[in-house]
Amino acid sequence: MSFEVIQRDKNTRARLGRLKTFHGEVNTPVFMPVGTQGAVKTLSPEEVEEVGAEIILSNTYHLFLRPGQEIIKKGGGLHRFIGWDKPILTDSGGYQVFSLARLRKIEEDGIYFNSHIDGSQYFFTPELVMEVQKALGSDIIMPLDICLGYGASYWETKEALEITLRWLKRSIDYKKNNNMETQLLFGIIQGGFYRELRKEAVERMLDMELPGFALGGISVGEPKDKMYEITDYTVSLLPEEKPRYLMGVGAPEDLVMGVSMGIDMFDCVLPTRLARHGVFYTKTGRRNIKNAQYKEDFSPLEEDCDCYTCRRFTKAYIRHLFLQHETFSYRLLTIHNLRFLFRLMEDVRRSIREGRLEEFKKEFLTQYLANDR
Amino acid sequence: MSFEVIQRDKNTRARLGRLKTFHGEVNTPVFMPVGTQGAVKTLSPEEVEEVGAEIILSNTYHLFLRPGQEIIKKGGGLHRFIGWDKPILTDSGGYQVFSLARLRKIEEDGIYFNSHIDGSQYFFTPELVMEVQKALGSDIIMPLDICLGYGASYWETKEALEITLRWLKRSIDYKKNNNMETQLLFGIIQGGFYRELRKEAVERMLDMELPGFALGGISVGEPKDKMYEITDYTVSLLPEEKPRYLMGVGAPEDLVMGVSMGIDMFDCVLPTRLARHGVFYTKTGRRNIKNAQYKEDFSPLEEDCDCYTCRRFTKAYIRHLFLQHETFSYRLLTIHNLRFLFRLMEDVRRSIREGRLEEFKKEFLTQYLANDR
Ligand SMILES: [Zn+2]
Ligand SMILES: [Zn+2]
Repeated sequence: MSFEVIQRDKNTRARLGRLKTFHGEVNTPVFMPVGTQGAVKTLSPEEVEEVGAEIILSNTYHLFLRPGQEIIKKGGGLHRFIGWDKPILTDSGGYQVFSLARLRKIEEDGIYFNSHIDGSQYFFTPELVMEVQKALGSDIIMPLDICLGYGASYWETKEALEITLRWLKRSIDYKKNNNMETQLLFGIIQGGFYRELRKEAVERMLDMELPGFALGGISVGEPKDKMYEITDYTVSLLPEEKPRYLMGVGAPEDLVMGVSMGIDMFDCVLPTRLARHGVFYTKTGRRNIKNAQYKEDFSPLEEDCDCYTCRRFTKAYIRHLFLQHETFSYRLLTIHNLRFLFRLMEDVRRSIREGRLEEFKKEFLTQYLANDR
Repeated sequence: MSFEVIQRDKNTRARLGRLKTFHGEVNTPVFMPVGTQGAVKTLSPEEVEEVGAEIILSNTYHLFLRPGQEIIKKGGGLHRFIGWDKPILTDSGGYQVFSLARLRKIEEDGIYFNSHIDGSQYFFTPELVMEVQKALGSDIIMPLDICLGYGASYWETKEALEITLRWLKRSIDYKKNNNMETQLLFGIIQGGFYRELRKEAVERMLDMELPGFALGGISVGEPKDKMYEITDYTVSLLPEEKPRYLMGVGAPEDLVMGVSMGIDMFDCVLPTRLARHGVFYTKTGRRNIKNAQYKEDFSPLEEDCDCYTCRRFTKAYIRHLFLQHETFSYRLLTIHNLRFLFRLMEDVRRSIREGRLEEFKKEFLTQYLANDR
């Protein structure tokens, strides 16, 4: 298990890499589709592979609540339970506790929270979150962290960072003492939108021998320019030889921007969630299949797309199914949106290889953002 | 286009047949999955084919309302619009007007009804229903008929039958005058649960040169013994050389019973609808995936099933997805239920070929009905 930078772009911080995990290799920069409940919504594992996924993300918080890590462990671990034998990354639940759970209370030892499903109370400690991820057997695991929203004060952010760093140390200790050699524990950099705190976070994590760094607390309600600024700054502090993962970010324009800033890994529920609302990606921006203009449009969602949906079906048919609430239409749109992102990442990697990422970025963003509706 | 009886069972009225349509051949006895809106709910056309379907049914009533036959015609006809190039049967809408539509009013010329979607009023005539099915281009088409519920009086049933027979003649005339040679128009036998009326219906349809007979007005709320009795009686009146289609019937036990009475074709929404409620078929009866006994059951839905679902996933995983409302679980259960029925029909056809349908029927019904919960 290791990370190797294969090629660097000369004009940006972008790089091509290869991340080796216990369940296989991943070519970076990579986008990871999200399988919240242990399945990328509406898709079979074969379909997830066919659109181009090399690694998926699943949520510790959700799997802990339902069906519970014990059942998954008895079922042979997460890979076997869900029928996916390529790499899996699980997050720590810190973000879900922040965004979904109710009545949370942070203490030195961990976080009390009430389940968003039935309100029952749980207590997440760094050790419990590691124990759950050990039971799941995911390839890349995350330590419990405190995630704050945009606008949190300096002192609140600093205190959360201090606890997050102490929890990281406890997570590292737990991993060492519990035979978790096949799992890669990344560090999560917090510090909100304060450069000073991001810098402190990175500096204090540098000697922890972490195999990778995740940028947390980003995409939490801030304007895009703030997001780009703090991402760019944080990456500039990171060592070249370790993978960098920008958590929860995955809009097409953000993938291209993030890669040029030196990000290697992304995940986001957006492409799959948008699909279930009728939204599909095209090179000239997002569209909605509900639009009346597609009523008699017998062309595919995108002319040159090679996905199953575009090879087989027309906008008029998908629109009809969508308006009748047929779940097959959610699948068709999900397949297209994911394939769009994976083709984008293939283009991005090819551009880095050919030394023309800057041109590609300019071209893509001009086309994609100009006509976004 | 023709129907050929290949082999007759010596102990029952069951027979093996081959029905040739414009879009290919169908081996009978056959079960037809229902694609109400032009898609078998939750499945792709490839999945429908993989479970063993040779022909599907789609609903004229629903396609007329949404997206409308004009759009489907512009899209190249129903086969092309939905991406299915094997045979399609469309019903006439008579049953939907009876079961779904509101404020219907039957006149000599046709039926006024209000859409179940938005209440807007429409008027179905035999000619309009034929025109819609011409636009759809389905291989087997049905004439507009009047479908009554169980308990309708003799005189009401007789009057409805008279109108249905006049509408059938008008449908035949429309077909003759409108270049619909590639489409097979079946006659629908009505007459409720009155033997005398069923007999009259058949006798008056015998000289109409129909390529097949559908048994309508069955499975409309009557007890099972009444259903079996009137089906058995009606089939006994029919000519040997024409296919017989029992409309809207498709429970496993009814398929086996129907075949032994001489039925060649069945359709039913039950296997797909039950799947979306968590119900799955096994040789020993129906089960529900929500049952707590499956919480840690890491075996497939049915041990010897060859379907995609059973080859790949465990009950524990499907149960987890189902409880979390993941649509992928509806697909997995639908695949299994349809495959169960198609394997049952394969077994039924093999039994007829080997002259042991009676034994198979006894064995299957004993196992299937004894433990049904
Ligand atoms: Zn596509
Ligand atoms: Zn199965």
